[in-house]
Amino acid sequence: MNHVYSIILAGGSGTRFWPASRRTQPKQLLRLSSETDRSLIGSTLSRILPVCDATRIYVATGEHLVNQTREHLPELSESAFLAEPVARNTAPCIGWATRIIERRDPDAVVFVIPSDQHVSSRPGFQKAVRVALNSAESGIITTIGITPTRPETGYGYIEVGAPLENPVSRVARFVEKPDLAKAKEYQASGRFLWNSGMFFYRAKDMTDAIRKHVPLLAQGLDEIDAAAKLGPAIELEATRRIFPTLPSVSIDVGVLEKQSTLNVVQAEFGWNDLGSFASIWEHGATDAQGNVAPTDAVLVDARDNLVYAQSSQKRVIALLGVSDLCVVETDDACLIMPRERAQDVRAIVDAIAAQGRKDLL
Amino acid sequence: MNHVYSIILAGGSGTRFWPASRRTQPKQLLRLSSETDRSLIGSTLSRILPVCDATRIYVATGEHLVNQTREHLPELSESAFLAEPVARNTAPCIGWATRIIERRDPDAVVFVIPSDQHVSSRPGFQKAVRVALNSAESGIITTIGITPTRPETGYGYIEVGAPLENPVSRVARFVEKPDLAKAKEYQASGRFLWNSGMFFYRAKDMTDAIRKHVPLLAQGLDEIDAAAKLGPAIELEATRRIFPTLPSVSIDVGVLEKQSTLNVVQAEFGWNDLGSFASIWEHGATDAQGNVAPTDAVLVDARDNLVYAQSSQKRVIALLGVSDLCVVETDDACLIMPRERAQDVRAIVDAIAAQGRKDLL
Repeated sequence: MNHVYSIILAGGSGTRFWPASRRTQPKQLLRLSSETDRSLIGSTLSRILPVCDATRIYVATGEHLVNQTREHLPELSESAFLAEPVARNTAPCIGWATRIIERRDPDAVVFVIPSDQHVSSRPGFQKAVRVALNSAESGIITTIGITPTRPETGYGYIEVGAPLENPVSRVARFVEKPDLAKAKEYQASGRFLWNSGMFFYRAKDMTDAIRKHVPLLAQGLDEIDAAAKLGPAIELEATRRIFPTLPSVSIDVGVLEKQSTLNVVQAEFGWNDLGSFASIWEHGATDAQGNVAPTDAVLVDARDNLVYAQSSQKRVIALLGVSDLCVVETDDACLIMPRERAQDVRAIVDAIAAQGRKDLL
Repeated sequence: MNHVYSIILAGGSGTRFWPASRRTQPKQLLRLSSETDRSLIGSTLSRILPVCDATRIYVATGEHLVNQTREHLPELSESAFLAEPVARNTAPCIGWATRIIERRDPDAVVFVIPSDQHVSSRPGFQKAVRVALNSAESGIITTIGITPTRPETGYGYIEVGAPLENPVSRVARFVEKPDLAKAKEYQASGRFLWNSGMFFYRAKDMTDAIRKHVPLLAQGLDEIDAAAKLGPAIELEATRRIFPTLPSVSIDVGVLEKQSTLNVVQAEFGWNDLGSFASIWEHGATDAQGNVAPTDAVLVDARDNLVYAQSSQKRVIALLGVSDLCVVETDDACLIMPRERAQDVRAIVDAIAAQGRKDLL
């Protein structure tokens, strides 16, 4: 498929994995999964290279993150990196990147993928992607939905609609993160899938959908398009000027949920969003006592803990008689919390921000 | 009292407070109590100076600890430091130091005090010491016993015998660390006191008691005494040669428990042995949530924790949703355990020793 392009979404505020993640080192730049020896974004790139040529892959990230991000993706050329002047949520970012691709190839089929997820079955992943690309080529924006393996309350769901050719169906609707009772219902019903955040479309279909659902965004992108015809310096100036004025809305809320017809490819390939340190423990390699920890940690009567040590000083972490903790250590901070509080790390980040200690953010 | 001398006991293996304490930095060199801004041994010295002139205070410590220890005690001259060539428990140490004092002043009254304890009422302490010194001057080895304020299982006890002039009594017997049921009995009975580890005697009485109960020790000390008459170089040579041959026994087991007549001064002055990090929490200044922590720690939903940070790097410690933990941090290690496991730190030290990581001990 010579017209396949990919947009890797690589923004991120770096709060959920503090202190490992920071404003200038968000989650996707960390080695949080055992999928490869690379950071999450490096794993993501190596996972999509078999279905998308490196010359047709783009990485959308913040201006302040471009340099660090490039170091993780040596397979890509400098022109692959699209620097958003400011973060305006996903619809402006995807709409803008899609226009850049469309100018290059009006017949492009685009594959949008987050940079910070874990996949354990790459063949399963690549098969689902190929099915989704075929579906998108028919002119219908297409998502991948993951068969739930547990009543997860941390993900959005997609309700499956009318079946098409297996494993493709129409999307009935998107649903927000449920409570536990709802999540159990969803899993039992067999009609709900996890929203993977990946989607596929012909560039022109997304441009049309944005024009229909977020006309102000389309108008801004038209202006950047017009500037681009006058050369790169003018394009850059226009992008920096116009981007901050674009409506800040997510692609899900602004476009996908308003689109009358969407397809979903149902799949299972050991997908995980790695939403918190608790997920890192769930997907990590445990010792006989259920601990995920560096080999030089000293563990006595310690069970089911995560130790994530990023310190360059090789400080030894010793746990005595503790269970179900997350211990996260860097050169300048050490966070200790129960695994079940791992989704609340933001409370610590907020407390640090309130104290004005910007060096720690 | 011109004949009052003091021996501060400052050995210690540095295991109970790992990673803050190390082989070359035992507990008494740490600032573990709020009694003063000094280390425990510094607090001890400043506590006894009102009852014992600095020129009559000796510090018995290991050869490998003399230099570090001197830095904590600038009030004392170089000759105050008695370096044990090897650690042979307390009876040889006290017997030897007592002989040194006795050679200087045959009428000396000696006051032995551990270097690693906490006292909250210094007037109460000094009053008890003066009573004990008076009792010792009568020719009876005298201890201080602390009225129990809780059923403590971590201390040895003294059973009070026949009353003398209040607050002095005879000692009925010493008892080992009890279990909780026994400790409750002891506290309820009113007849049992905590063994403070402080005791008082005329130098000649201790020399006699050692000759009676541990004759091999007396014999070794006689040899060192004889060598001392021939000059300091010969004394040093004899000490280094003879000390390792002395019987390794504690002053309690070897001498005090065998002595038919002992006195005890009953006292209360906010005494604590600071046996583990749990004691540091009990005696520390807590915030409204019961945490004892540095002011730059970030605490969210955290209750009744101890954070002891000795790191020179000012790494921030963040606790989210944890209770009753001890977190102890140094430049090269971080230990996390429940407060109730604080007396088991040795298990971590043993695990590290078993791994051959001597740099951490």
